[in-house]
Amino acid sequence: MTPQPTPWRRRLDEWVHSTRVQNVVMALILINSVTIGLETAVAHGSALGRILTVIDHTALTVFVAEIVIKLVAMGPRRFARDGWNIFDFLVVAVALVPGAGPLSVLRTLRILRLLRVIKFMPSLRRVVEALLLSLPGISAIALLMVMIFYVAAVMSTAMFGPAFPDWFGNLGRSLYTLFQVMTLESWSMGIVRPVMEHSPWAWAFFVPFILISAFTMLNLFVAVIVDTMSQMDARHQGDDDAADAAEASGTAADDAAASGAEPADPPADLPADPPADLSGEILAELRALREEVAALRAERV
Amino acid sequence: MTPQPTPWRRRLDEWVHSTRVQNVVMALILINSVTIGLETAVAHGSALGRILTVIDHTALTVFVAEIVIKLVAMGPRRFARDGWNIFDFLVVAVALVPGAGPLSVLRTLRILRLLRVIKFMPSLRRVVEALLLSLPGISAIALLMVMIFYVAAVMSTAMFGPAFPDWFGNLGRSLYTLFQVMTLESWSMGIVRPVMEHSPWAWAFFVPFILISAFTMLNLFVAVIVDTMSQMDARHQGDDDAADAAEASGTAADDAAASGAEPADPPADLPADPPADLSGEILAELRALREEVAALRAERV
Amino acid sequence: MTPQPTPWRRRLDEWVHSTRVQNVVMALILINSVTIGLETAVAHGSALGRILTVIDHTALTVFVAEIVIKLVAMGPRRFARDGWNIFDFLVVAVALVPGAGPLSVLRTLRILRLLRVIKFMPSLRRVVEALLLSLPGISAIALLMVMIFYVAAVMSTAMFGPAFPDWFGNLGRSLYTLFQVMTLESWSMGIVRPVMEHSPWAWAFFVPFILISAFTMLNLFVAVIVDTMSQMDARHQGDDDAADAAEASGTAADDAAASGAEPADPPADLPADPPADLSGEILAELRALREEVAALRAERV
Amino acid sequence: MTPQPTPWRRRLDEWVHSTRVQNVVMALILINSVTIGLETAVAHGSALGRILTVIDHTALTVFVAEIVIKLVAMGPRRFARDGWNIFDFLVVAVALVPGAGPLSVLRTLRILRLLRVIKFMPSLRRVVEALLLSLPGISAIALLMVMIFYVAAVMSTAMFGPAFPDWFGNLGRSLYTLFQVMTLESWSMGIVRPVMEHSPWAWAFFVPFILISAFTMLNLFVAVIVDTMSQMDARHQGDDDAADAAEASGTAADDAAASGAEPADPPADLPADPPADLSGEILAELRALREEVAALRAERV
Repeated sequence: MTPQPTPWRRRLDEWVHSTRVQNVVMALILINSVTIGLETAVAHGSALGRILTVIDHTALTVFVAEIVIKLVAMGPRRFARDGWNIFDFLVVAVALVPGAGPLSVLRTLRILRLLRVIKFMPSLRRVVEALLLSLPGISAIALLMVMIFYVAAVMSTAMFGPAFPDWFGNLGRSLYTLFQVMTLESWSMGIVRPVMEHSPWAWAFFVPFILISAFTMLNLFVAVIVDTMSQMDARHQGDDDAADAAEASGTAADDAAASGAEPADPPADLPADPPADLSGEILAELRALREEVAALRAERV
Repeated sequence: MTPQPTPWRRRLDEWVHSTRVQNVVMALILINSVTIGLETAVAHGSALGRILTVIDHTALTVFVAEIVIKLVAMGPRRFARDGWNIFDFLVVAVALVPGAGPLSVLRTLRILRLLRVIKFMPSLRRVVEALLLSLPGISAIALLMVMIFYVAAVMSTAMFGPAFPDWFGNLGRSLYTLFQVMTLESWSMGIVRPVMEHSPWAWAFFVPFILISAFTMLNLFVAVIVDTMSQMDARHQGDDDAADAAEASGTAADDAAASGAEPADPPADLPADPPADLSGEILAELRALREEVAALRAERV
Repeated sequence: MTPQPTPWRRRLDEWVHSTRVQNVVMALILINSVTIGLETAVAHGSALGRILTVIDHTALTVFVAEIVIKLVAMGPRRFARDGWNIFDFLVVAVALVPGAGPLSVLRTLRILRLLRVIKFMPSLRRVVEALLLSLPGISAIALLMVMIFYVAAVMSTAMFGPAFPDWFGNLGRSLYTLFQVMTLESWSMGIVRPVMEHSPWAWAFFVPFILISAFTMLNLFVAVIVDTMSQMDARHQGDDDAADAAEASGTAADDAAASGAEPADPPADLPADPPADLSGEILAELRALREEVAALRAERV
Repeated sequence: MTPQPTPWRRRLDEWVHSTRVQNVVMALILINSVTIGLETAVAHGSALGRILTVIDHTALTVFVAEIVIKLVAMGPRRFARDGWNIFDFLVVAVALVPGAGPLSVLRTLRILRLLRVIKFMPSLRRVVEALLLSLPGISAIALLMVMIFYVAAVMSTAMFGPAFPDWFGNLGRSLYTLFQVMTLESWSMGIVRPVMEHSPWAWAFFVPFILISAFTMLNLFVAVIVDTMSQMDARHQGDDDAADAAEASGTAADDAAASGAEPADPPADLPADPPADLSGEILAELRALREEVAALRAERV
């Protein structure tokens, strides 16, 4: 059981998640992304460069403060439950790593914080979450591709590695070259024709590899399409069921009312249900009939 | 409230939109498109060249006159309401810009007026409007792609710009090179292998970039397919609903007739509804039954 | 009105279309296709070369005889009604053209007669006819592509023709280069980067061209998918309707039987319809009820 | 009729197929795949190399033993009935071929035994079996592609072979080059532009070839999508039918109970069927009505 947060932490939580604070943060992300982009075009020591550095530091300070406040207000467990919070944390943390020497390339990762903006824009957020959700559905095909690549890389390293060390010298190089071949980039003029000068039967390895990987990718593609469409069907089905449930509960209410009240002039006081489709009409007709029979029975007594 | 057009403006409107006038304009567009094409193959001072210029000027005069007449007859507000009119206006206006000196390239934009012909051909018009309608559905994914490209361009400019100024020297060049990489054109032999000579880990930037952009494009593709199919389903649904509504109103008419007329020999004089499906049959059976019960009740009294 | 064929023509027609004759023709097509393939690997004057030539001439004689017989037996009008016959005629006729001098390339068209085999194999025939049937559905998009290509070719000829005559020297060359760009083959490293050395803004023409043509092709693709699926749905719908009709006629028969016979012990002698779905069950229930009411009414009297 | 296996063969069969034994085999496959991969990076005579060889030989011994045991326990006929067993047999047998001299390349085929792991992982197995199942559906289009390639190869060998022997010198080279052209790799800058230097009309062969092969591949793609979706629909339909059958049998049970028991207080003791959709509700209403009428009839007597 999570402990009840103290009142000041709850107030802090509400404040940091308030629309005003979040809008300020989002604006700062956008401004900061522009300034990081501008930095690529500005000499490092110039006046504009120094202004951009100040803006960058200010933004970074605000981002760190925001995350610290969230961590304090929510507690680390609730904070970590939302994947977007973890993403924020990593993207901001990377900027705090001292970016000197061989790690200076890490500084360029700062621009990744532009992606934090996705969280604030519902349509983007939906697209990204849909992309992430479609990953498990293709994991089996992706695993199969990894196996095909590993098998092909071991084979091509053993077969072509000695003669073409730049392309097939070790497993890593073979994997890279096979990825290039799979994307069909210069696979023939760039790679396979030169290899065939040395091993004339090389086409018997590469052409099946291209066909198999293309066919597997095609099926990955089809899997994504079919998955998306069946999810949409399921959602539609869900909508229909919800509508049915709503109608059913409405009908239950009618029934309750009908059994409570005396059926005076049956066909007339039937609720004028909008006849959604023929089934609804049949049901209405049927109830009218039943009340008719009930009236017949009542008259008989 | 738009003011009521004066009678002569309405007559002008009718005349300029009449089939005859529009057919003349369409024929002139097609002829003019051929002559502009021929101009590319003809020496500028030749006799044929002069004839082509005369035809071009005549066509342009007619196009300007047509648009001026439409503007006067419809008024600027009604004129601007149709996107095709604005397109016509821009395409004709571009030819009036003095095309000398550095702006001579604008003269080549004249050929865009061939696209005006789309408006006159219903099948083409439907395709183009469908293309334009499918744009909003992909706007979120397109925005995501723009963000991915901006982030990747800033990173590659910072990482590879100093060593490869032609490809990654500034944000613009990086964006162009990344677009080339996304289309898979010479991405490996042309760009990434040379870059890896200098930064051996460059594949760790480009391979994920290719995978992410390809996966995003795949989802854009799927979005267009699913969108189109659900639109078609919706239209079908609409057709079905319309059919249902027609049937329902027919049924209502039957009901009115039934309640107005005396039920003499009930099962016989039921309207011989074509039993569309089993539901219709059930409904017919049910009504016969109800009249039977009504008869029973009537006999009893 | 087509005249009634004379008896010997009808017998000839039956004979030439008989399974045995058609199988012989089909076998000869396959053998001939193999010999034409072998000819590419055989010296022209060798013994094997002369044997292949003899086989080829024999096959050609048989093909000509078959078509002449069909023409005589069916008459030219009935013969021309089937597209496959016209295809046969053209493919055989091309081999009779004297293939000397500049027309020697026509001799290579002989191999097209292998495609005649499609007619004899139902699964292949179905695929080809499906391919041909899907062409009208994409004609509007194809026409749009032709217009986009024409506009782009005129513009690129005017803009880049003087500097790059090999690629954009005239409309034909521009169309070919633009087709290459659309297939994304070396579009950047091969074409656009060299062009940008001369006209730095060339990307503003080619990148939109790639995006527009790719988006149009994507929609052509989607059109083919959606078309195919809705055709399949329509066929399914047809199957369902047929099933409904069958069931309905079955029900009608039941009704006739029911109205003819005296309802003695109603719920028992109801035909034990296999309750296809809930609707069928409802209907059965309803009929039982109606007979119950009828019995009630009968008892009353 | 297959002979009844002797008891010790049945026990052997059970033992070799037991989860424990199969898990050991699967672990050994994975370990062996890693060691074969490592071998590519290790000098042949080194200490690590000798360890890897020992592991490889051990694994091979186990694999051979496993297959021999299966063959003995199941008998060759039952063994060969499962395609996966044949695959295991071939993949293990290839390692027993003496891999010296020109056959040394066969040694690299050992890594194919990693693919045996697919059999042990249900999700992978399902993907591979789905891939294999989708092959017959595209066999007609694949056969058509083979015919198009054969026709195009014969034509291009005859037309371009003499001038470009490396690309079109014989049928095999032409097939390879046409495959490259179909994948759009360097088709224009690499192949067709050089050919057009010699035969200016070559585009009239290659552009239609690209369009036809792309259109055929597009239809192969569509066939796979439509096939997969209709298979899924069929499975859903099957699910629905199963559900209907279950409900129908439930209803039959209700009916039996209803006809057996005396309807005392009809509307109350109706089984509280969960009203799946409107039809269910109608049926319930109808039964209530029928019992009402039955009660009316009973009271009358």
